[in-house]
Amino acid sequence: MHPAFGLGTRDGGKMKAYGELSREELLALKSQLTAEYEDAKGKGLSLDMSRGKPSIAQLEMSNDFLDALNSGSLMKAEDGVDVRNYGDMDGIPEAKKLMGDLMGVPAENVIVCGNSSLAIMYDTVSRSYTHGVMGSTPWCRLENVKFLCPVPGYDRHFAVTQHFGIEMINIPMTPQGPDMDLVEKLVAEDESVKGIWCVPKYSNPQGYTYSADTVKRFAALRPAAKDFRIFWDNAYAVHDLFEDRGDELEDILSLCAQAGNPDMVYEFCSTSKITYAGAGIAAVASSPANLADLKKSMTLQTIGYDKVNQLRHVRYFKNLDGIRNHMKKHAAWMWPKFEAVLKVLDRELGGLGIGEWTRPNGGYFISFDAMEGCAKAIVAKCREAGMVLTGAGATFPYGKDPKDSNIRIAPSFPTPEDMEKAADLFVLCVKLISVEKLLEQKDA
Amino acid sequence: MHPAFGLGTRDGGKMKAYGELSREELLALKSQLTAEYEDAKGKGLSLDMSRGKPSIAQLEMSNDFLDALNSGSLMKAEDGVDVRNYGDMDGIPEAKKLMGDLMGVPAENVIVCGNSSLAIMYDTVSRSYTHGVMGSTPWCRLENVKFLCPVPGYDRHFAVTQHFGIEMINIPMTPQGPDMDLVEKLVAEDESVKGIWCVPKYSNPQGYTYSADTVKRFAALRPAAKDFRIFWDNAYAVHDLFEDRGDELEDILSLCAQAGNPDMVYEFCSTSKITYAGAGIAAVASSPANLADLKKSMTLQTIGYDKVNQLRHVRYFKNLDGIRNHMKKHAAWMWPKFEAVLKVLDRELGGLGIGEWTRPNGGYFISFDAMEGCAKAIVAKCREAGMVLTGAGATFPYGKDPKDSNIRIAPSFPTPEDMEKAADLFVLCVKLISVEKLLEQKDA
Repeated sequence: MHPAFGLGTRDGGKMKAYGELSREELLALKSQLTAEYEDAKGKGLSLDMSRGKPSIAQLEMSNDFLDALNSGSLMKAEDGVDVRNYGDMDGIPEAKKLMGDLMGVPAENVIVCGNSSLAIMYDTVSRSYTHGVMGSTPWCRLENVKFLCPVPGYDRHFAVTQHFGIEMINIPMTPQGPDMDLVEKLVAEDESVKGIWCVPKYSNPQGYTYSADTVKRFAALRPAAKDFRIFWDNAYAVHDLFEDRGDELEDILSLCAQAGNPDMVYEFCSTSKITYAGAGIAAVASSPANLADLKKSMTLQTIGYDKVNQLRHVRYFKNLDGIRNHMKKHAAWMWPKFEAVLKVLDRELGGLGIGEWTRPNGGYFISFDAMEGCAKAIVAKCREAGMVLTGAGATFPYGKDPKDSNIRIAPSFPTPEDMEKAADLFVLCVKLISVEKLLEQKDA
Repeated sequence: MHPAFGLGTRDGGKMKAYGELSREELLALKSQLTAEYEDAKGKGLSLDMSRGKPSIAQLEMSNDFLDALNSGSLMKAEDGVDVRNYGDMDGIPEAKKLMGDLMGVPAENVIVCGNSSLAIMYDTVSRSYTHGVMGSTPWCRLENVKFLCPVPGYDRHFAVTQHFGIEMINIPMTPQGPDMDLVEKLVAEDESVKGIWCVPKYSNPQGYTYSADTVKRFAALRPAAKDFRIFWDNAYAVHDLFEDRGDELEDILSLCAQAGNPDMVYEFCSTSKITYAGAGIAAVASSPANLADLKKSMTLQTIGYDKVNQLRHVRYFKNLDGIRNHMKKHAAWMWPKFEAVLKVLDRELGGLGIGEWTRPNGGYFISFDAMEGCAKAIVAKCREAGMVLTGAGATFPYGKDPKDSNIRIAPSFPTPEDMEKAADLFVLCVKLISVEKLLEQKDA
């Protein structure tokens, strides 16, 4: 297990675990918690922890970004193309380099697109559906198309595959990444398995980073389907929570090439959570053959993406070091909010046996696993008191968490003060719902 | 016929028409023209009139556009949404208003997207192919899907439908718009006709604007297919060539609603040829029901488009008057280039009976019709001497001009001086190829 990870309950132990309480003790606790909850509700809170949305303070850290290009700027890319005009459909060279460095791949493996990596992913699935992958049968002509979905995972990934009628298969996550025994087996056995969604670094929502061994096993997959692709959403490549340490992720592109699978992966990234969520740039990296295949449709879809914004990013950051320095500011702002949540979780829930949570080194989320059958009720209870969390179940395909247990906590948007209030309310709701569940179990 | 349009040959008549020349006269002319051509070739010209690409001077007219937002700017949209963050998937309210005004439709009928209207069109076709239109059978599940294509037309439209295996049917253009008798008949008769590509104002390449009667007939179509849609690419809505006059286009959205066909049209526009070709904003306008249908996919495809650039456009132009004033600068720069071409065409080809050309009031092109079977040869001859034109045939579906006659002239990119050189070379090649064709015909 990654040394930085741990389950909150380990550190606890101050209190008796709820599971060991008698019916009477539970009833007393329930009435106490209910009173506390009514109190909290009376405060008229309005907190939003539903999405991995940057905070205003974080956006302000990029404000001089808008000054990186002005009427006095030279508007030519390195290759002489005027960024204001048509041309360079697949991105200006210096933006390819910058986004390539962000992903740890050469510039020639990169296409820089518009402001949304989700759009590149959607388009890649859509293109495979309408036109196939490098000459394969278009997925719309196949009876069965399946995607493997490490769970819990990113709801928007699942929404895309669901939209295209693609069957989604849950793959359990571990702190080292998806259950690779299962991935290897399903990919090798079933030709209808065409893809897998991955957030390999600081996974959404657990914050796990795939281990070197996991990435190597991914690169060495032997899929039954020629058009099987790994959708490697490297959304949090430089999104460490600490200045002095962060997880390391192996470069899957080169590992795939070494393993004789050069075309098996598409890697995606964006600056949505580096500069502006609404006005970043996004990129896809892959093998030359895959890029050529993507471009066949892309050149019909657009004459080119916003190159002015590409150049703005390059002028602002200059290089990967520029991005890394910038991200230290984010970390300094983000960590205290994670810390506030983790402290409250540790203090209030430690040792109670009613929840486990992750302790990530980066990314945008803390993943919380409540007792089975409690997640929906906890989220509803929070909402009733003025706090919006990501809908329970959202972290699973079809919105169905088989255990109704996982809750995604997104500390990015609130202020640290709000974050503490939010965490207090959250643990209160967890306790109350857990007590109710335990009473139910005793009564059953 | 629209009063502003005319065929170049009308004004001519100085010279004997080539068709009336004897074999000997043609031979003498050929040897003279060949000498002139060799001369021209020796000049080592390098001219590009292949695409409707803005010139550098035109781009410079928007340079202070980049100053419209800077680190000191208020970054909130009218609805309070921070444009730097996620939110307002379908565009900020003030950008909807601006783009709506550009198209002459209410803001509530508008979705503002990224930098490319072509991408919105591609995505709309793709979405219909994968998911159908408002509940209809997805086009990928149908045996036959057809689009009507007014010709000559825009090659990128045709490329999109071809990419999706959609059968394209040529519809002859007239100065009033497409042949509506044919459009009405095919749309009413054939349920597999699902769409028609239109550039209703300053059409690409002829520069024709659909007459009020044509637009009304469009709005009153009675399609056999419920999912038939008009793809109304209003790319040149404010792109007049003169300060004091321009063509008027009826608003098809309201006409469709009046005719009981509220959902029959998607209208597209962008600022690619207003601010920057590489960094404009694009929009689609349609009925509430169509927009809701589009959004079902869009909300999965992206969390939102670049709202910073949307706000930049609003801050820069303020309103439609701001855009109109800006476009006067474009007109003042563009018209002399059109004039240079038209003067040379009139002077050199007038009365020769070897070509006809349009005389648009706006847009980006002049359409030239050579003698049958000559377009490819003329374009090749021009290229040999250093001038790149749009490939002959490109203005027709599948790149096949049945008469091999149409050539698109794009005066936007070259300087006026280059434009004159280009026109001189062009008429020379037209003459030479026409003489060769006439000699062939005499020898046959």
